[in-house]
Amino acid sequence: MSTAKFYGIGVGVGDPEMLTLKAIRAFKELDVVVLPEAKKAEGSTAYEIAREYLKEGAETLFVEFPMLKSVEARKEFRKRNADMIVEHLKAGKKVGFLTIGDPMTYSTYVYILEYLDGVIPVETIPGISSFSDMSSRFNLPLVMGEESLKVVSLNGETDIVGEINSADNIVFMKVSRNFDKLRAGLEATGNLENIIMVSNCGKETQEINFDLTKMEEEDIPYFTTLILKKGGINQWKKFIS
Amino acid sequence: MSTAKFYGIGVGVGDPEMLTLKAIRAFKELDVVVLPEAKKAEGSTAYEIAREYLKEGAETLFVEFPMLKSVEARKEFRKRNADMIVEHLKAGKKVGFLTIGDPMTYSTYVYILEYLDGVIPVETIPGISSFSDMSSRFNLPLVMGEESLKVVSLNGETDIVGEINSADNIVFMKVSRNFDKLRAGLEATGNLENIIMVSNCGKETQEINFDLTKMEEEDIPYFTTLILKKGGINQWKKFIS
Repeated sequence: MSTAKFYGIGVGVGDPEMLTLKAIRAFKELDVVVLPEAKKAEGSTAYEIAREYLKEGAETLFVEFPMLKSVEARKEFRKRNADMIVEHLKAGKKVGFLTIGDPMTYSTYVYILEYLDGVIPVETIPGISSFSDMSSRFNLPLVMGEESLKVVSLNGETDIVGEINSADNIVFMKVSRNFDKLRAGLEATGNLENIIMVSNCGKETQEINFDLTKMEEEDIPYFTTLILKKGGINQWKKFIS
Repeated sequence: MSTAKFYGIGVGVGDPEMLTLKAIRAFKELDVVVLPEAKKAEGSTAYEIAREYLKEGAETLFVEFPMLKSVEARKEFRKRNADMIVEHLKAGKKVGFLTIGDPMTYSTYVYILEYLDGVIPVETIPGISSFSDMSSRFNLPLVMGEESLKVVSLNGETDIVGEINSADNIVFMKVSRNFDKLRAGLEATGNLENIIMVSNCGKETQEINFDLTKMEEEDIPYFTTLILKKGGINQWKKFIS
């Protein structure tokens, strides 16, 4: 029997070639593969990426992190998921939590770490985050020289103009439900032309937009990210196809 | 003869296992391997990581990006480097620019892109950035839930308190020459206990510090990064050894 260990493993956002050698080495060790999902039985992109490297007989464990309004209800789900994982660890198993993108960047993996005691060894293996994938895919620099970079997950309370004023380059995530306000903020600060907005990045349904003026909030897909480069974006368009 | 193509390839910050499959596939294609260095003949960590995957007879091209005060002089070096690379591309070669960390995050790779015309194909392959490597190495979440993340490269003009007030989690890079000011800003905003500072991350000389009070600016190594988590850091220390 192997010795208990908990892994958080980033698998990138979809392209299996974004896996690191370290992730692949870890896959081969796992007794239990934990796959987070927002809805029950929605399937797992992370599993599709990892499956060819997993050892025969590795167990899969789907854990649900539903987007509930009640903080208490969300915590209850997290606790239940952590308990299931700890049970496997206490049985001496190697358990790996697979995460889209990077495990330390907006991942539910952290909600399991919160419940661990620090005695069972933990190894986190970084992955290519969604914004890093997107910037390389379009040959668009995220941040250069003495500039700053900010990553903002939009919600109803975000002070958009404040965020725009606070950095040289800003990645806005969760754009779909906040599109009108974001566009208004970009217009108010004279930044409408300094952006690229990408929906369903890397998928067959990928859409790239530089001009937001005629778009409607209701048409923006859920997986939409906008990058603002206050130094301008025109000089980089030559590489974006 | 292969068809001309320019690659920017992130190799992570030192651990060869942080290479992606995509980077390895690209290494095998390269006719010319471009290795940036800040000082002439300083050697190349990127080359050490990549060398076992390169095809036999691949040419290496060291390009110097010295840290000169004059912007004009820096631009001259960049232009000369770009010219050398374009010459190889015009000869129909596949040329790969290797970069520590991620090519779109504070890399000199971008200074070559600026001189390309968009006709020769460009492929950028992301890598694990220094701050992503550091957060995973210490099992320390970079950003969770609805929080924001900011990355700041410190210089003499940085408004440190302004930066601290502008995000939930902040990665401060280039700490060494700005340590006293940074510590004062952390103290003024009540954040002295919410930080981890790491020097020479991942190297034999690695140092981890949580308490800045007795440190002296002149003792801080050049490769030092500080992560501020305004939500507190104590709950994560159990995983940091």
